[in-house]
Amino acid sequence: MNKRLFLSVFFLCGLILSSNAQEALFGGQNITSPEVHEDGSVTFRLFAPEADVVQVTGDFLPSVKIETQMGPMDGPGKADLTKDDKGVWSFKSEPLPSELYGYSFIIDGFKTTDPNNPFLIRDVASVTNIFIVGNGQADLYRTQDVPHGTVTRRWYDSPGLGMDRRITIYTPPGYETSKDDYPVLYLLHGAGGDEEAWISLGRTAQILDNLIAEKKVKPMIVVMPNGNVIQDAAPGEGNKGYYKPQFMVPKTMDGTYEGAFEDIIKFVESNYQVKANKENRAIAGLSMGGYHSLHISRYYPNTFDYVGLFSAAIMAREDATGKVYSDFDQTLKTQMDNGYKLYWIAIGKTDFLYDANKEYRSKLDSMGMEYNYVESEGGHIWRNWRVYLTQFTPMLFQ
Amino acid sequence: MNKRLFLSVFFLCGLILSSNAQEALFGGQNITSPEVHEDGSVTFRLFAPEADVVQVTGDFLPSVKIETQMGPMDGPGKADLTKDDKGVWSFKSEPLPSELYGYSFIIDGFKTTDPNNPFLIRDVASVTNIFIVGNGQADLYRTQDVPHGTVTRRWYDSPGLGMDRRITIYTPPGYETSKDDYPVLYLLHGAGGDEEAWISLGRTAQILDNLIAEKKVKPMIVVMPNGNVIQDAAPGEGNKGYYKPQFMVPKTMDGTYEGAFEDIIKFVESNYQVKANKENRAIAGLSMGGYHSLHISRYYPNTFDYVGLFSAAIMAREDATGKVYSDFDQTLKTQMDNGYKLYWIAIGKTDFLYDANKEYRSKLDSMGMEYNYVESEGGHIWRNWRVYLTQFTPMLFQ
Repeated sequence: MNKRLFLSVFFLCGLILSSNAQEALFGGQNITSPEVHEDGSVTFRLFAPEADVVQVTGDFLPSVKIETQMGPMDGPGKADLTKDDKGVWSFKSEPLPSELYGYSFIIDGFKTTDPNNPFLIRDVASVTNIFIVGNGQADLYRTQDVPHGTVTRRWYDSPGLGMDRRITIYTPPGYETSKDDYPVLYLLHGAGGDEEAWISLGRTAQILDNLIAEKKVKPMIVVMPNGNVIQDAAPGEGNKGYYKPQFMVPKTMDGTYEGAFEDIIKFVESNYQVKANKENRAIAGLSMGGYHSLHISRYYPNTFDYVGLFSAAIMAREDATGKVYSDFDQTLKTQMDNGYKLYWIAIGKTDFLYDANKEYRSKLDSMGMEYNYVESEGGHIWRNWRVYLTQFTPMLFQ
Repeated sequence: MNKRLFLSVFFLCGLILSSNAQEALFGGQNITSPEVHEDGSVTFRLFAPEADVVQVTGDFLPSVKIETQMGPMDGPGKADLTKDDKGVWSFKSEPLPSELYGYSFIIDGFKTTDPNNPFLIRDVASVTNIFIVGNGQADLYRTQDVPHGTVTRRWYDSPGLGMDRRITIYTPPGYETSKDDYPVLYLLHGAGGDEEAWISLGRTAQILDNLIAEKKVKPMIVVMPNGNVIQDAAPGEGNKGYYKPQFMVPKTMDGTYEGAFEDIIKFVESNYQVKANKENRAIAGLSMGGYHSLHISRYYPNTFDYVGLFSAAIMAREDATGKVYSDFDQTLKTQMDNGYKLYWIAIGKTDFLYDANKEYRSKLDSMGMEYNYVESEGGHIWRNWRVYLTQFTPMLFQ
């Protein structure tokens, strides 16, 4: 085989191996989707000559009311694509604010992924294509040309849960070669999430890299555990193999996790260069992770100087009868009396947990327990939790 | 809001947030796809009441000849699903040998992902659903209940390429708390791959964990760099943001990477507990990574005692005119004269690089350069490369 032929075969083999390229061979060539334009508008394209109706749906479109058993709720909008004479469908959006967006195509009623965009994020059991519109907030979610921290997936022994468990840990740029000790943020996911949620959906590594480079955030270690006590790891990463992830995982809010949280702190403080004291520990979480943060920061007395409740699922639960939840009022008062630097509550105006958070703030007010409160637009969505992370972390360890 | 109502809303919110669950609300409930049965057969299911024809395609089906510009080549087979009266399509395969398989659905001619299977692997620009049939070879690709190593994504400084670059590193169970030094395998990806390829498609962490637990493989560090010198990181992970990955990335086989490989060795040997000598260094790669391994092991004299060429793209290239490729015969003879413990060549019988490898083996024969040779079934596919990794690693550092 001569060199030229070899290169041709090698290249063709690549085409054959790659189904998108294969599609290119057979008609749908040179398709770029999504294409983010200078002004923030985005063009979506799909080669589907046999389709009758193609739509795009996602959080970049104005939301619409959808009917549910609980009455009307906000759902993602849809837009129609139009077909050209080559069978390529397209839709161009309005200029969009800087954000990380998700979208799906709906082809003759069937909701699916964009074959020209290999960038996807799993949220519970759904896989959604993503794109970023820059020149604003979402530049914090990009990998920029700044020093990068390290992201580690590691397993720790949890005697409290009787298993080895997978955990994701971000260490800041320079950590490995530094002799310094670092502060630690424990960052907890919501229902249906796991140790992958904050690093993928939450863009934790990019946010920390970028804010540390801007000197807005102190270099810190961010520990992202798995809050589902029946899992050793995220679905697909543990010894249960592949199975469809569920939103409501059993035993996630019954006190077991909070009660075993000391295993995580011990693991971190005996395996990393950390400042192992209250002044240098923070804990925050979204939704169920906010519930966990509330209880963990109260249950382990005098352990955390910084607490963040992002759209926290604050309400009491009927199965929450264990030791962790006993003496709630007394332990909360003890937390207040022991003092702390920041107790930060954030929630969106249309979040279904808004009222529960309002009630909790009233309780704190009546106790005289201080907190900072941020009320944002929008509901119970990752867009808010990423923003909250960019707002919360600059206040830590200063 | 009372507790019961809160829980209902919380649960419903999960349904709304999860598009698969949303689908469940509107008709396609309780769909499991794929379902791997005890005997190794697999049922695929899809809720698509409006579709006319639904097929499944993947490497679990017998391959078929497809016409290409280069003549007939092997392509993945297809099977038809049948629709029940609820609009759920299904197909049950024959019992399959133990393997990690990939598949896609074809809905009225449109190839796409399975919305009920959130487990996907990206290969170049294609994203494909995966599943594992166990009770055999593929048990090595599962996360089993054994001690687990750590997988780290880190950035190293490459003076030779003038940039910080992302790299994936596996350290074996117990590494962090051990005082021992470890041997190192440098494991290189093929064209279109990057620092994610071996860890995701190649199941490196699972294979090493499982073979180390069986005491068939010595605990070792596995270093998986990015072989595309124009990239700082895998597509989507670097400072170029999201773009469609290409199979043929410029400058991958022109000597630049090999010439700068010392940056990687220096980084590893100054940042990890390693035995920094020839006896404890191995290098292996697939396809283009086999080409890189061949040249790196020859260009850096007396550096590697173990070399693995997996379906190596061995041929000379017209743009390979730099220092790395000069004195090929002489440096290969020097490598032979310096001695090594293993020079391992593996290729599939139907690989399009079979002849090139045969020619190279003839060259080695005529020089008297010893090597071990494994000829497998099949072609230029990940299935073979995972098997080669399970065959190669037990021979290292013994």
